[in-house]
Amino acid sequence: MSKSRRDLQIHKTYEALFALEDLREVFRQSLPTGLDKEQENSISETLARLKGIIGDLERGEGRLNENKIGRLEPRTREEEFINIHPIQAAGRLTPEARKAMISYGDGYSACDFCRKPFRLDKISRPPIEEFHQELARFVNMDEARVVPGARRGFQAVTQSILKSGDSVIVSSLAHYTEFLAVEVAGGVVKEVDLDENNLITAEATAQKIEEVREETGTLPALVMIDHFDYQFANEHDVYEIARVAHEYGVPILYNGAYTVGIKPVDGKKIGADFIVGSGHKSMASAAPSGLLATTDEWAPIVFKTTQMTGDLTKRRFGIKEVQNMGCTLMGATLLSMMASFPRVKERTGQWEEEVRKSNYLLEQFLRVEGSRVQSEWPRKHTLSKVDTSDSFDLVAKKHKRRGFFFSDELKERGIVGEFAGATRTWKLNSYGLTWDQIRHTAESFLDIAAKYGLNVA
Amino acid sequence: MSKSRRDLQIHKTYEALFALEDLREVFRQSLPTGLDKEQENSISETLARLKGIIGDLERGEGRLNENKIGRLEPRTREEEFINIHPIQAAGRLTPEARKAMISYGDGYSACDFCRKPFRLDKISRPPIEEFHQELARFVNMDEARVVPGARRGFQAVTQSILKSGDSVIVSSLAHYTEFLAVEVAGGVVKEVDLDENNLITAEATAQKIEEVREETGTLPALVMIDHFDYQFANEHDVYEIARVAHEYGVPILYNGAYTVGIKPVDGKKIGADFIVGSGHKSMASAAPSGLLATTDEWAPIVFKTTQMTGDLTKRRFGIKEVQNMGCTLMGATLLSMMASFPRVKERTGQWEEEVRKSNYLLEQFLRVEGSRVQSEWPRKHTLSKVDTSDSFDLVAKKHKRRGFFFSDELKERGIVGEFAGATRTWKLNSYGLTWDQIRHTAESFLDIAAKYGLNVA
Repeated sequence: MSKSRRDLQIHKTYEALFALEDLREVFRQSLPTGLDKEQENSISETLARLKGIIGDLERGEGRLNENKIGRLEPRTREEEFINIHPIQAAGRLTPEARKAMISYGDGYSACDFCRKPFRLDKISRPPIEEFHQELARFVNMDEARVVPGARRGFQAVTQSILKSGDSVIVSSLAHYTEFLAVEVAGGVVKEVDLDENNLITAEATAQKIEEVREETGTLPALVMIDHFDYQFANEHDVYEIARVAHEYGVPILYNGAYTVGIKPVDGKKIGADFIVGSGHKSMASAAPSGLLATTDEWAPIVFKTTQMTGDLTKRRFGIKEVQNMGCTLMGATLLSMMASFPRVKERTGQWEEEVRKSNYLLEQFLRVEGSRVQSEWPRKHTLSKVDTSDSFDLVAKKHKRRGFFFSDELKERGIVGEFAGATRTWKLNSYGLTWDQIRHTAESFLDIAAKYGLNVA
Repeated sequence: MSKSRRDLQIHKTYEALFALEDLREVFRQSLPTGLDKEQENSISETLARLKGIIGDLERGEGRLNENKIGRLEPRTREEEFINIHPIQAAGRLTPEARKAMISYGDGYSACDFCRKPFRLDKISRPPIEEFHQELARFVNMDEARVVPGARRGFQAVTQSILKSGDSVIVSSLAHYTEFLAVEVAGGVVKEVDLDENNLITAEATAQKIEEVREETGTLPALVMIDHFDYQFANEHDVYEIARVAHEYGVPILYNGAYTVGIKPVDGKKIGADFIVGSGHKSMASAAPSGLLATTDEWAPIVFKTTQMTGDLTKRRFGIKEVQNMGCTLMGATLLSMMASFPRVKERTGQWEEEVRKSNYLLEQFLRVEGSRVQSEWPRKHTLSKVDTSDSFDLVAKKHKRRGFFFSDELKERGIVGEFAGATRTWKLNSYGLTWDQIRHTAESFLDIAAKYGLNVA
């Protein structure tokens, strides 16, 4: 099967999906008692078109039709290419999530059977309440809520527990959203230094806590630590860091944006007061989505319900949670999380295999002389930072397309997702690729190197 | 075409969509160089299944297959039924949005071509930057951002401009998310009284501002007013209210959750400092989504960029906006907004016709003796609150199914979305229904009334 045959089939698959959406719209415009003549004709015409598309798909032949959605190009990167984008890998939807998005795309689609007490996490049909209980168990915490992205989880915590001017201990590799979560709550970030291996240690955390106490006269209000950071995806010793934080009586937020949904996370074992995860980063879900889980001790604080009373009407709004702004993900985003969840739970059990693939890929990559892995080695994660200043960048310096030569060559081999044009330091993520795709990607690195005369060991 | 034939066709449409997603998954697992034997077989088998489904669809015959997504039932309410749910009507996706959800469902799907300065609203492919400019023009304001729901727009404003203890003027019909937005920012709501027609007037607003000044010694920090409230969907005189607020030098937030996306909204004409809209409520978009627009005067305050510096690394995170927590809608939610937008813009021009349909439907409804419309009359909106205590509730009192008799009867006629079991006061929304669907709904009300011996004028 030639590449162009496959690409055509992919485009025909989209054409067929879109034709079915046109069909679906006819039903939406029709009466429950049945279709009128014009609608029947519309169905017949669309079915005829659909059968043509499916014939093309089957033969792998046919005209590539304009298939735009207004001015939007359909996105076919995940089908046409192997995508090694650093933040997209584990947020790719499962087939189940895609089906859920088709079924539950409409605005407030989660609210068909919303009854007293009128809160998203209490809805039993679809089984949203049960899902929340499962989410809590999944990370071994007492309570969980879905939130519009990990950042909104951080924010709910900081705004619940910080007073103005409070310090929050973060990593020197902290993600910008952690900075913002502290800033929006009126706090100040205090960064823990890295050791020589770009790791945050419990000792360095303790030292920073001491420094803050000395400098400000009070303990920091929170320690917020990434299990794996976004820069190198190095593993930081969250277990010991949590222990140290608790020795000082400081609560700890475990940032699981790069773990929850891809590797097992046990909040109780970690000793975390808060676990935050990202749906669109690591739980095969649509953006923005994520989770915030906590303990029975902290739940009444971070999930505090509204106390505001209308001065005139004396209205109160029951059990709506202030920091979550009431309901959070009322439709497709939540349903994508729910639909992916069985597979997401299952895949955390395959983490070691994912790490093996990551190491294999980078071992091959390192055969290109001058290439380096900046992340800790061997890899404990599928996201890695690499340095090709002394390999592919040497080519880029002389190539008329500069660093884009590398993107061009990768794309020609069906690989996308590296930062286009970057040939010094860049990141890649192999999460979820099959062994065949891993091998193809590895061979492509070596092949490009050989083509441009770089030494391959 | 019988009802069951139509229902079968609807289910077959979903079956076909799901089969195509299975097909799509094979491409995702394959190599860019082509499919292997097993994948080829999988494609062939899925295509054979798909052709069977389409045959069934065409003939309107066949077995109704189990079509669940794990434990999730596909949601077919919008296809099988006429949905008069009060908050779902204008959040139903357009076909374009559904196609965009199919194409852009994966997590960070908006980020393929994210380049410096690394902010969602600066991305040009897909044309997200252009879309933001169009959004601002759409509501005639200077700047706009997408946000995860109107509530997050309120929150960005209150947290930007309130000091602890500040008062915010809201309507006595204010939505709970406005209460929460004030509460989360440490403010206090002060409700404007309703007049005898359940309307907020400029005079009453001025009076409340005076009261607050007298009581607290300072002016309120903000006036937050719903153009149409969520209870009655009565129209409140936002133009005069904005004028009065400005006379006192108090900024005004226009809550357009029930207007932006369905009727023309002109922020400059209103004199609004902030316009908030809801994607999943009124812009045919997936949840959570919405917009916050403001003026050049307020943009630097509400869209303030991060000032936080890492104490150790001296890191700064550029132009990330604090109250938006950086990027907001990085995938399907945003793309659904963008895909629906051309049709959403266009449909605001048909608002008068939507209001005519609403009035027609309720005129018919009022023919059932004892039925009342609690919202202002004639209707200026498609959402309405009705009172059937002296009509359908009389039946419910004697019926073994109680209020559910009404839901049963409506459902039998292909209508859903009223609050199941409620036969005293309840709400309905006719937005987006065709005239045929409106007439069918009206006839159903009369038909049910007649069946149970209620007088019909």
